[in-house]
Amino acid sequence: MKTIENPSKQDWQAIIERPTQKVSDIESIVTEIFSEISQDGDKAIAKYTEKFDGVVLDTMKVSTLEIEEAANQVPDNLKVAIGKAKANIEKFHAAQKTKKVEVETTNGVLCWQEKRAIQKIGLYIPGGTAPLFSTVLMLAVPAQIAGCKEIVLCTPPNKEGKIANEILYAAQLCGVTKIFKVGGIQAIAGLTFGTQSIPKVSKIFGPGNQFVTVAKQLATKHGIAIDMPAGPSELLVIADASANASYVASDLLSQAEHGADSQVILVSDTKELLAEVADEIEKQLLELPRKEIATQALQNAKAVLIENREEALDFVNEYAAEHLIIATRNNDFFIDNITNAGSVFIGNYTPESAGDYASGTNHTLPTNGFSKAYSGVNLDSFLKSITFQKISKKGLLNIGNTIELMAEAEGLQAHKNAVSIRLKDLS
Amino acid sequence: MKTIENPSKQDWQAIIERPTQKVSDIESIVTEIFSEISQDGDKAIAKYTEKFDGVVLDTMKVSTLEIEEAANQVPDNLKVAIGKAKANIEKFHAAQKTKKVEVETTNGVLCWQEKRAIQKIGLYIPGGTAPLFSTVLMLAVPAQIAGCKEIVLCTPPNKEGKIANEILYAAQLCGVTKIFKVGGIQAIAGLTFGTQSIPKVSKIFGPGNQFVTVAKQLATKHGIAIDMPAGPSELLVIADASANASYVASDLLSQAEHGADSQVILVSDTKELLAEVADEIEKQLLELPRKEIATQALQNAKAVLIENREEALDFVNEYAAEHLIIATRNNDFFIDNITNAGSVFIGNYTPESAGDYASGTNHTLPTNGFSKAYSGVNLDSFLKSITFQKISKKGLLNIGNTIELMAEAEGLQAHKNAVSIRLKDLS
Repeated sequence: MKTIENPSKQDWQAIIERPTQKVSDIESIVTEIFSEISQDGDKAIAKYTEKFDGVVLDTMKVSTLEIEEAANQVPDNLKVAIGKAKANIEKFHAAQKTKKVEVETTNGVLCWQEKRAIQKIGLYIPGGTAPLFSTVLMLAVPAQIAGCKEIVLCTPPNKEGKIANEILYAAQLCGVTKIFKVGGIQAIAGLTFGTQSIPKVSKIFGPGNQFVTVAKQLATKHGIAIDMPAGPSELLVIADASANASYVASDLLSQAEHGADSQVILVSDTKELLAEVADEIEKQLLELPRKEIATQALQNAKAVLIENREEALDFVNEYAAEHLIIATRNNDFFIDNITNAGSVFIGNYTPESAGDYASGTNHTLPTNGFSKAYSGVNLDSFLKSITFQKISKKGLLNIGNTIELMAEAEGLQAHKNAVSIRLKDLS
Repeated sequence: MKTIENPSKQDWQAIIERPTQKVSDIESIVTEIFSEISQDGDKAIAKYTEKFDGVVLDTMKVSTLEIEEAANQVPDNLKVAIGKAKANIEKFHAAQKTKKVEVETTNGVLCWQEKRAIQKIGLYIPGGTAPLFSTVLMLAVPAQIAGCKEIVLCTPPNKEGKIANEILYAAQLCGVTKIFKVGGIQAIAGLTFGTQSIPKVSKIFGPGNQFVTVAKQLATKHGIAIDMPAGPSELLVIADASANASYVASDLLSQAEHGADSQVILVSDTKELLAEVADEIEKQLLELPRKEIATQALQNAKAVLIENREEALDFVNEYAAEHLIIATRNNDFFIDNITNAGSVFIGNYTPESAGDYASGTNHTLPTNGFSKAYSGVNLDSFLKSITFQKISKKGLLNIGNTIELMAEAEGLQAHKNAVSIRLKDLS
């Protein structure tokens, strides 16, 4: 962890820079696989599943029997934990429902906005060493509350052609309608074009490695929406002397264990805390099974001393963290003035891992500074708002002339005529 | 206008297909200009303004004096019309404000969601023959209501180095903070990277030709959000014998005059209406100044006879129109069951041009079937939602074990440890 004391604003850009990712060489592979799957569907999917996942499957769709068997394997205490987390996620996302917005903007001109569910969505859940069943909850729970009709989940099989029990259990618990053993680029391509087995969807959600990220970006060129562009996970902690150094260290490490490219930043107005946290990290790191990954990630870590509070706020907003922990004497100052962050964790007893699993907030969040413009996944991510308008004869008499004048000034005579032809009948 | 009677579902895909756009040859030009502007800033912008707009400017920033002079040139009756339209747009978008969503998901676990403005945004307004000042209203009014701090507008200058008076007038009226005489790819690149003159923004809004569309897509690769992918404008009208054929024709023509690639579709359960509308189009077309453009667009137009109401609904949802006019005996059936549309216009006295200018709804809408997953521009387009959580000691005692179990099952020991280390102090 590199310590930087009172950097000048000119140096901020270098400090907040994320570890770079190279995508250009990936793009050609992704484009080729997309093209093949758009042509050959399931056959091409099977080819890439064999190539990348090392397994030949009889069928890529997970059967009801497989799901039942998987559910039986999940320990009861974990089922209880998943149930509690699910209940909190449900409460928080259900509370995000909005009512129809209706306004009579001019007498006789009724406008309203209603949200309707995206009908078909795809969820991508990565494979690998750890089964990320928590992400199934974070995506499928709000999708179900929103009322999405088709919720398709793709996740890579292991070499035995299986999916982690916890993922299958969580998927059926949260109303996923179809599950496919398909991973990586081929999963995103399948959801983009549709195949004999996999339905074409309108929006794709979920994390993934660089191949998945580039594939999701390419999907947007084919008219498919995505939740957000993804990058390595990150955490910024702003803490003062009131913070507990060992807690701060544990939070920074929980972020660092995600991957070698994870980034953690600590900002404080006191050198003592920076030093204490550094000591605590050293200590706690030794105990961690993923200490090698965390150690690599810590090479990108920065401890920044900023004594002025307003300047610290500016720095935090400029960084635009995916996860932001605030542990200071005056948390409200930061809460009130934060403009850019994905999810914010307040006080000494709110570890980031609470939001990763069970508090109820979503853990699919904008990384890489994208929180300057993007929200994390929330109920609205699964809805679109549609506007409606209904104008009475009187209403058209009231605004008709305004429309005519503006259409004429824009040189769009047919736009004007659509009003004039009606007004003529009304006069 | 091609008439298709009772097509089978297999034929729908061919009917709803939009006129294709080729982007591959544009991409290399866009990539090159982006690279040059990211390196050379204003200098490169000036080079491309000379090349594409045929003008060498002393300064690309519009001065206060220029704005004042432009405002003086706008006729008073147009100013009144713009004022009325602005008032309606303001009413409808201000009504879309939402309150903080706060839930105590578990005793001691307080979660909330707040929306905060995107701080810096860019608005792109195309040049060309017609000054699209209405789009300035549609983008700048909600941006101001949302509280965006920096609202930067770029629009190409004409050969005299000027911008249309109406655009400058509307921009200052709606709180645009900076206006630049920069168009096309170079404008999008300038807003993406920032130059000596143009501020870097976090999100870019606004319509444009294929070059602008591809440039906005490329901007997303550089971490800049965009309002939505754009395509040619389109209208679907669903009408039965209760509709007025000449009104329907006028609406279809108002869409057709946008561009040769605009698409209009009429769906009806009665052959008579299809025939009457076709006749009316012939008649009204003759009077239009933009009749050549409209005639070309009408070559892509389709009149589809679908007698079954449920099937008509499915077709309308499958098309997912940018603009949808419903003029039938039972409009509520369609209103209640529409899942995919940008903006909906109901009844005989609600022409699409009302929403283009003055009813209050937004006219920046998803084309090309994107309304299956995208909303039109609305207040939320200028905001991000941030989640917050604050857990008390008691709250952590309540959910701590749930987090520990789930983190352990995902193999993320440091995530677990961030909770365990706190629980130890609390027990």
